[in-house]
Amino acid sequence: MPEKIETGVFKTTHQPSIISSAAIVGGKEGKGPLGQYFDKVVEDSHFGQKTWEKAESKFQLEAVSTAIRKAGITKEQLDVIFSGDLINQCIGSAYGLRELEIPFMGLYGACSTMAEGLLMSAVYTDSGVAERAVAVTSSHFSTAERQFRYPLSYGGQRTPTSQWTCTGSGAVVVDINGKGPRIAGGCIGKIADMGINDINNMGAAMAPAAAETIRRYLSAVEANPSDFDYIVTGDLGITGSELLIELLENQGIMINDRHRDCGAMIFDAEKQDTHAGGSGCGCSASVLCGYFLPKLKSGEIKRILFAATGALMSPMACQQGETIPSISHLVEIRGDI
Amino acid sequence: MPEKIETGVFKTTHQPSIISSAAIVGGKEGKGPLGQYFDKVVEDSHFGQKTWEKAESKFQLEAVSTAIRKAGITKEQLDVIFSGDLINQCIGSAYGLRELEIPFMGLYGACSTMAEGLLMSAVYTDSGVAERAVAVTSSHFSTAERQFRYPLSYGGQRTPTSQWTCTGSGAVVVDINGKGPRIAGGCIGKIADMGINDINNMGAAMAPAAAETIRRYLSAVEANPSDFDYIVTGDLGITGSELLIELLENQGIMINDRHRDCGAMIFDAEKQDTHAGGSGCGCSASVLCGYFLPKLKSGEIKRILFAATGALMSPMACQQGETIPSISHLVEIRGDI
Repeated sequence: MPEKIETGVFKTTHQPSIISSAAIVGGKEGKGPLGQYFDKVVEDSHFGQKTWEKAESKFQLEAVSTAIRKAGITKEQLDVIFSGDLINQCIGSAYGLRELEIPFMGLYGACSTMAEGLLMSAVYTDSGVAERAVAVTSSHFSTAERQFRYPLSYGGQRTPTSQWTCTGSGAVVVDINGKGPRIAGGCIGKIADMGINDINNMGAAMAPAAAETIRRYLSAVEANPSDFDYIVTGDLGITGSELLIELLENQGIMINDRHRDCGAMIFDAEKQDTHAGGSGCGCSASVLCGYFLPKLKSGEIKRILFAATGALMSPMACQQGETIPSISHLVEIRGDI
Repeated sequence: MPEKIETGVFKTTHQPSIISSAAIVGGKEGKGPLGQYFDKVVEDSHFGQKTWEKAESKFQLEAVSTAIRKAGITKEQLDVIFSGDLINQCIGSAYGLRELEIPFMGLYGACSTMAEGLLMSAVYTDSGVAERAVAVTSSHFSTAERQFRYPLSYGGQRTPTSQWTCTGSGAVVVDINGKGPRIAGGCIGKIADMGINDINNMGAAMAPAAAETIRRYLSAVEANPSDFDYIVTGDLGITGSELLIELLENQGIMINDRHRDCGAMIFDAEKQDTHAGGSGCGCSASVLCGYFLPKLKSGEIKRILFAATGALMSPMACQQGETIPSISHLVEIRGDI
């Protein structure tokens, strides 16, 4: 059963295991530096569907189905599924997962959703509400672009700090009794808003939230950055990552030698013209599921922090002159060795 | 610590208490049959703000602040807040609550959000992750109408089955050690989609989800409808309520003498021209917080089921020819006598 260490920070007692994970990504992500690590690369951005929104739903269903298959279980053995995405009213999740008939809890954490779902899965399994839980999320370049920015056909100019929304989905199955990387604890994020209102610079808006969450967790569990192989952030991108390192350095926390950002990793910014890097719920989800979790499983790495970051604004809020509130949730994951 | 009874159904061990609740509603809701029960009626639909979206955020902040004050605690004593709403990217929640600096977990459950937040609060407090949690949600007639239907000034004709989105917010403080109505257990909803695609008949779309959740819970805990003073649904409205009663009757579960629906209760449909009744996250939240919880606290009633219902569609999904997936989460609440 989980134990509160301080406000919003807890450790698990039984250390629930991530018994399987799956990452399904789009063509551009498949051509990036991590292409070989994903379970499936789908070249068709419509994934055989009539709309991009329906395609995003299919990405999510495919990721969950693959994770279930890899876990060697049936969907009836799942007690709850935690899911959310960026599309208005989270339709990527609801429509994607409705046919599964698994108890469903919708989340909204923007690009922090994978970490929020992992926190939830850890709490629900470690406490006994569930034996097995799924956390999943997705994003799609075209659904996000036309909802948050411009019609796809408009071809708007991108600024150097802008990020490229990843097409993809990542899903994990968490089991209280299984084998696999273990969720040792977590930190629930607080909303941070430093007054940034440039929707083409999400990395800068989200970096303070990530810095504060990482600081709170390290302090609560009395750990140092050097205790971890990697401190992984969601999708700060290149600009946001530099800011994060600086913000933590100012507080005497040096993470630059072990910090990795999923947004900075998933594309080759120069060759793929993605400017400050990747973003979207599916970015950190697919990089965690495809790249980091297998390394924890194989024993190649032993302990990481995974802090996904989300910008909680909407186009309407920005049109109304609002700044960008951000959040970062964190889980500690250890190899099962 | 919570205990799984069957898939998606659990009971709590310590029965966390709802130590306070607050309901803040708009002028039309204040003039309805339950007007006297709410903590505050705000006649100005802008709540002194420049936009309705900012007003909705203020409703939510006001509800949480009032609940905290009534609990006699400070915000620093809260470990986590669960919140979500209907506006795109849940900005009612993120912008409303950012200044509180309380660990924040965003939910998306459409109009089922209050029950989802109560489930979360029960699990997080009963398991030891948190000592105190807040569950809150909101809706606003004008933010919902212009987002889901038509511009306010358009004055579109309303069908007889259509519902009126409530303006209001409800918030509870759940405490593992306090006194007040207790959350005895809960049922996590499954997504139900019976193929209804009329966005002016949400009640019909949501009734099957409520029926299935109520059936699952009663069966799992081996209880009968007569064990409860009331079986409360969120916002099925008049049309959806009739359907719910019929659906359960077909399975031998008779609830018609003790069923109450927040959507059917909050307005006088005839005098207030609200057709099939109220809807919106704020509907069931404010009726639970203003009407039912105080009755449980005073001992006037002893045991209820609260099953809020949500329609998980978006305007875009409907434009793409989709049907309306729905969900209903449930909590059992007992008087603290």
